[in-house]
Amino acid sequence: MIRVGIAGYGNLGRGVECAISKSDDMELVGVFSRRDPSTVKTVTDVAVFSMDEIESKKDDIDVLILCGGSANDLPTQTPEMAKYFNVIDSFDTHAKIPEHFANVDKACQENGHIGIISVGWDPGMFSLNRLYAQAILPNGKDYTFWGKGVSQGHSDAIRRIEGVLDARQYTIPVEAALESVRKGENPELTTREKHTRECFVVAAEGADLDKIENDIKTMPNYFADYDTTVHFISQEELDRDHAGIPHGGVVLRSGSTGFNNENKHVIEYKLTLDSNPEFTSSVLIAYARAAFRLQQEGQKGCKTVFDIAPAYLHAASGDELRKNLL
Amino acid sequence: MIRVGIAGYGNLGRGVECAISKSDDMELVGVFSRRDPSTVKTVTDVAVFSMDEIESKKDDIDVLILCGGSANDLPTQTPEMAKYFNVIDSFDTHAKIPEHFANVDKACQENGHIGIISVGWDPGMFSLNRLYAQAILPNGKDYTFWGKGVSQGHSDAIRRIEGVLDARQYTIPVEAALESVRKGENPELTTREKHTRECFVVAAEGADLDKIENDIKTMPNYFADYDTTVHFISQEELDRDHAGIPHGGVVLRSGSTGFNNENKHVIEYKLTLDSNPEFTSSVLIAYARAAFRLQQEGQKGCKTVFDIAPAYLHAASGDELRKNLL
Repeated sequence: MIRVGIAGYGNLGRGVECAISKSDDMELVGVFSRRDPSTVKTVTDVAVFSMDEIESKKDDIDVLILCGGSANDLPTQTPEMAKYFNVIDSFDTHAKIPEHFANVDKACQENGHIGIISVGWDPGMFSLNRLYAQAILPNGKDYTFWGKGVSQGHSDAIRRIEGVLDARQYTIPVEAALESVRKGENPELTTREKHTRECFVVAAEGADLDKIENDIKTMPNYFADYDTTVHFISQEELDRDHAGIPHGGVVLRSGSTGFNNENKHVIEYKLTLDSNPEFTSSVLIAYARAAFRLQQEGQKGCKTVFDIAPAYLHAASGDELRKNLL
Repeated sequence: MIRVGIAGYGNLGRGVECAISKSDDMELVGVFSRRDPSTVKTVTDVAVFSMDEIESKKDDIDVLILCGGSANDLPTQTPEMAKYFNVIDSFDTHAKIPEHFANVDKACQENGHIGIISVGWDPGMFSLNRLYAQAILPNGKDYTFWGKGVSQGHSDAIRRIEGVLDARQYTIPVEAALESVRKGENPELTTREKHTRECFVVAAEGADLDKIENDIKTMPNYFADYDTTVHFISQEELDRDHAGIPHGGVVLRSGSTGFNNENKHVIEYKLTLDSNPEFTSSVLIAYARAAFRLQQEGQKGCKTVFDIAPAYLHAASGDELRKNLL
């Protein structure tokens, strides 16, 4: 059994807890939280410890899965925890990945641990598919579309507008753009041509709805470059119809082969997810298995999904995989 | 530069020749053929050698790509060549993969070489996607659909019928079945419900068309379990409209997460290929790069796509990959 610990207990931590409870080769040792452990109730009644005592558990845990946020938690937490544990995180600030990699690698190398960073679906499975597709079709063009799905960042941005009580924002790929890519037309697409944004907003009584709508649609970076639709609904409707956290998207590469580039090929990888955090958790669990196996082999250092052979993720043996899946 | 050799010069060999000619880090040393070399003309004017002299080139070639057939060539050729070279093949007789793996592994281990077998899209990229999707969603169901594409085996089977001069057979996924899977409905599908078969047949003058159509539609294993459509056309029409070798298909996994399996997820990998052999060649080339790098690291033995970390396939460095693709 692979003994797993969870650091941080929000949506992602609960997703990991659930995934481990359904995994035959893993057991959850405990959840570590910065909150007072007595106030944290886990779904499976697994023990909750204070983050301050985590070092004392270093011999009880094979892999620690870090479930904090990329903005404030992971940049310091992952390298710090890599001193004591094999670590996995879902660090998703794309621009800062090289720096984060270097920090985690240093801690892992010095302490003989494995770290796997930026595990999830983007970064993660989408990144993998970009790499495979580029390696196979060097002469081609990449496309990534996100959605239909909830963007927490955009929902939060709307909530910060005066007069807004609650909000949910969906990112939606433009179907015509997707179809053009699928046909191998290699379109040049602007931001506006790739995605639309749909917002469901609960406004305070008496709030200026026109002003809220305008504030949303003109918000730089978040909405100004997109065609945005705003719907005002009641809190009851929001809670009833928009409680889920679906997401997904599509990675495509369109390329050509042949001495005169006469043959076109399209590679498409598509995810349709009811629960963004639960799917991310499921990817984290698979890479936790890989981290454990890599350390058993005597490896160390920081890795990403690019550096890990697929067989390490699956519970079955090499013989079984070749027989049943190849 | 990675020095590559090609053994066998049919559609696949020519595809590999083309892919190497467009690859910055590879050069083609020569083509080996069982035919008289003076009768073989390569597209890029690369040297052609007799298969009998291949052993003498063992120090000139880093990776040998075997482009023969799975039925008669590769079972003996790949293990034999693994004595002298790092080898890659596209062995696709699924049921015999474990045996082939063992034979190639023995030769590779004894001679310090890397072998990578069953490289292409199925087996190959489709296998990889089955593995990744199963590892991430252990509670789920797999589906593979092939087409729309030309099946050489089925086209050949039609050509063997009395009165048939030429034929081309397309395998076509049933759209309703695909849509049901994409919706996460987890349907149980019979052979007939998954694919249809469409045949374009050139009959000899005076041939009994009703008998040919009946012979096709009732042919065991090939057609009897499918809804099959037969069109009689002229040789001119066949040559004009059906000269290409398109193929492709879709691998899907539909699975659920959550403590009550309340959240559904669908992972889809889809290929739409103008040229089946050229796409397969492109995958072979990427794994040839991996074989070269693995041997440089001092590894040996037989591997499959399951055993090779994605980064080995791409020409860019780890730093570049993390910066640009993660």
